Amino acid sequence: MRINNKHYQTIWLKPEDPAVVQIIDQRLLPFEFKIIDLTTIEDIFTAIKDMKVRGAPLIGATAALGIYLEVIKIADSVNFVNLLSNASEYLKSSRPTAVNLAFAVDNLIHSLINIEQSEHRIQVAHDQAMLVVNNEKKYCRQIGEHGLLLIEEISRKKKGLPVNILTHCNAGWLACIDYGTATAPIYLAHDKGIKVHVWVDETRPRNQGARLTAFELGQHGVPHTVIVDNAGGHLMQHDRVDIVLVGSDRTTANGDVANKIGTYLKALAAHDNNIPFYVALPSSSIDWNMTDGLTQIPIEERNPEEIFYMEGKKGSTIEQVQILPDNTHVANYGFDVTPARLITGLITEKGICKAEALSMKKLFKK
Amino acid sequence: MRINNKHYQTIWLKPEDPAVVQIIDQRLLPFEFKIIDLTTIEDIFTAIKDMKVRGAPLIGATAALGIYLEVIKIADSVNFVNLLSNASEYLKSSRPTAVNLAFAVDNLIHSLINIEQSEHRIQVAHDQAMLVVNNEKKYCRQIGEHGLLLIEEISRKKKGLPVNILTHCNAGWLACIDYGTATAPIYLAHDKGIKVHVWVDETRPRNQGARLTAFELGQHGVPHTVIVDNAGGHLMQHDRVDIVLVGSDRTTANGDVANKIGTYLKALAAHDNNIPFYVALPSSSIDWNMTDGLTQIPIEERNPEEIFYMEGKKGSTIEQVQILPDNTHVANYGFDVTPARLITGLITEKGICKAEALSMKKLFKK
Repeated sequence: MRINNKHYQTIWLKPEDPAVVQIIDQRLLPFEFKIIDLTTIEDIFTAIKDMKVRGAPLIGATAALGIYLEVIKIADSVNFVNLLSNASEYLKSSRPTAVNLAFAVDNLIHSLINIEQSEHRIQVAHDQAMLVVNNEKKYCRQIGEHGLLLIEEISRKKKGLPVNILTHCNAGWLACIDYGTATAPIYLAHDKGIKVHVWVDETRPRNQGARLTAFELGQHGVPHTVIVDNAGGHLMQHDRVDIVLVGSDRTTANGDVANKIGTYLKALAAHDNNIPFYVALPSSSIDWNMTDGLTQIPIEERNPEEIFYMEGKKGSTIEQVQILPDNTHVANYGFDVTPARLITGLITEKGICKAEALSMKKLFKK
Repeated sequence: MRINNKHYQTIWLKPEDPAVVQIIDQRLLPFEFKIIDLTTIEDIFTAIKDMKVRGAPLIGATAALGIYLEVIKIADSVNFVNLLSNASEYLKSSRPTAVNLAFAVDNLIHSLINIEQSEHRIQVAHDQAMLVVNNEKKYCRQIGEHGLLLIEEISRKKKGLPVNILTHCNAGWLACIDYGTATAPIYLAHDKGIKVHVWVDETRPRNQGARLTAFELGQHGVPHTVIVDNAGGHLMQHDRVDIVLVGSDRTTANGDVANKIGTYLKALAAHDNNIPFYVALPSSSIDWNMTDGLTQIPIEERNPEEIFYMEGKKGSTIEQVQILPDNTHVANYGFDVTPARLITGLITEKGICKAEALSMKKLFKK
């Protein structure tokens, strides 16, 4: 998608030197746009650990390119297999809970481990890592194409008046390679000339809506308005929301969705006001072994400092201020679970299905 | 209630000089505790306009004491009635939408207008203004006594384990004279030795929960935990909330409640999880002419800067940082309406009733 009127992905190989990985330093967004070069596996490790890149699809792709950078260095070594295994363990330790990362790295190692010729090792590492990048991009584009149909239908019913879409957190292209998940249908609709307007939840405590979703929609030229997380219900009561589109961190086989804390409250409000509530997700986020989100999905408790301090721009620097009384006790839950009964449908790369076991199984032929 | 282990109200006459009104400068809370002297009607005007005092009951009481300060000055004047009328208009212009303020000032003017003797004028102004102060305090105490019964009942059922109460915004003593509305039952329970724990919603965008409710509960020694506004639903899904207690800015004759934006979302979650949801309010907040909150109560749109900037402590100073991308469009709704169907009951100074016309009429003998 566009930044400063130029098309970007979140990660790419430097055109003039394909042994250099380039990323956007997302910690500085939206206040500063800075591209950084990653040339070693250590650079990749730090970029993931320090959250210069974030979002499951992007982390997986970054780690895959980390293996590629390391293979360039170790391809000639007699210890290739051992060094490769060390690289794998090292990268997996950067974000131990990121399932995508481990999956991407393991797959790549598997493709490499029996190759003898050093040039061939580098070529396979490159091709397989780029396949991770391009597949993530393709799935998002497909999610966008399926979700676009929903927006087009509302647009027709509204005779071309803007379709008001509410979204929570950042399920945008900055968390993926391009397009995003919940944002993919929005970008495709906008690029096709369909009038859309997005209500962007601020998304406390990390403010990914206010910082990232507002930034990426703004840079791509999509009309949007930031609201506090408290405001969505009021807007829905007054017919100001036509559809809710959110992402998913984990989806159970019966259609329960774990997503950023607060998603459940928006689903309740959508349900109370008969507003369609859709979740956009790549099928890799479906955990086919789980059948009850509320009891089975563990909810991460995060650092209290995310609530205690607020980061923002002061003049030309980024600063933190304390926003609570000294020594206040804080609890910081990362996610909540939206029960399938509140979800109108799931938008996946394979198509749209109901948030229930049979419909999901049918779509994925499980 | 207590601050630094000493009992305070939000407003009082200076003991050594009853021609001086003293208040806590609430703009500085929770970062600095500062008492300021108000000696003229201009001081009172500024205190209200600049929100050194806030909350409907407190604003009304402050304005009443403003008339008292002015009467001390003009009691001897041949133009007493004209000057009094000017004072009334002047104070009402400090917060034009504050109904309590206009009501308190008009009542006071009415008591004074036919009094001829200057000493008598001052005495009546003093007594009537103090009556406003003491009545507000009395109503909160009565709300507390009625609400206490609900907490005691839950405590008994839980065999003395802490009663978990969720509250939104600041319906606390800092918005009133003492006790508060939603907090009154909590303070009375705590002071009686009943174990309570309060989940304090941060309450974006003005953070009155994080700043004021957390401060006053902390100073009074009531166990509490601050959470983001997104988290309440998750806690309710996991049996971590026993009762929700909130305040009301305006209540319709059929029991719909306009309160701080986001209240509706918590009411939905309470309803979805079978958790009692009570609204504490003085009967002065009931608008007996309104019968449908959603269509009849106007919702104030506030300054976008409240969402655009965040205030906090940096070292020993209070600073503002920008938390959105430059030029982001923002919408800032102050309140939402919780339909009566989601409300378990109303706790008033007269007792508890259902949020429906007949039950309310019966309690207030209308």
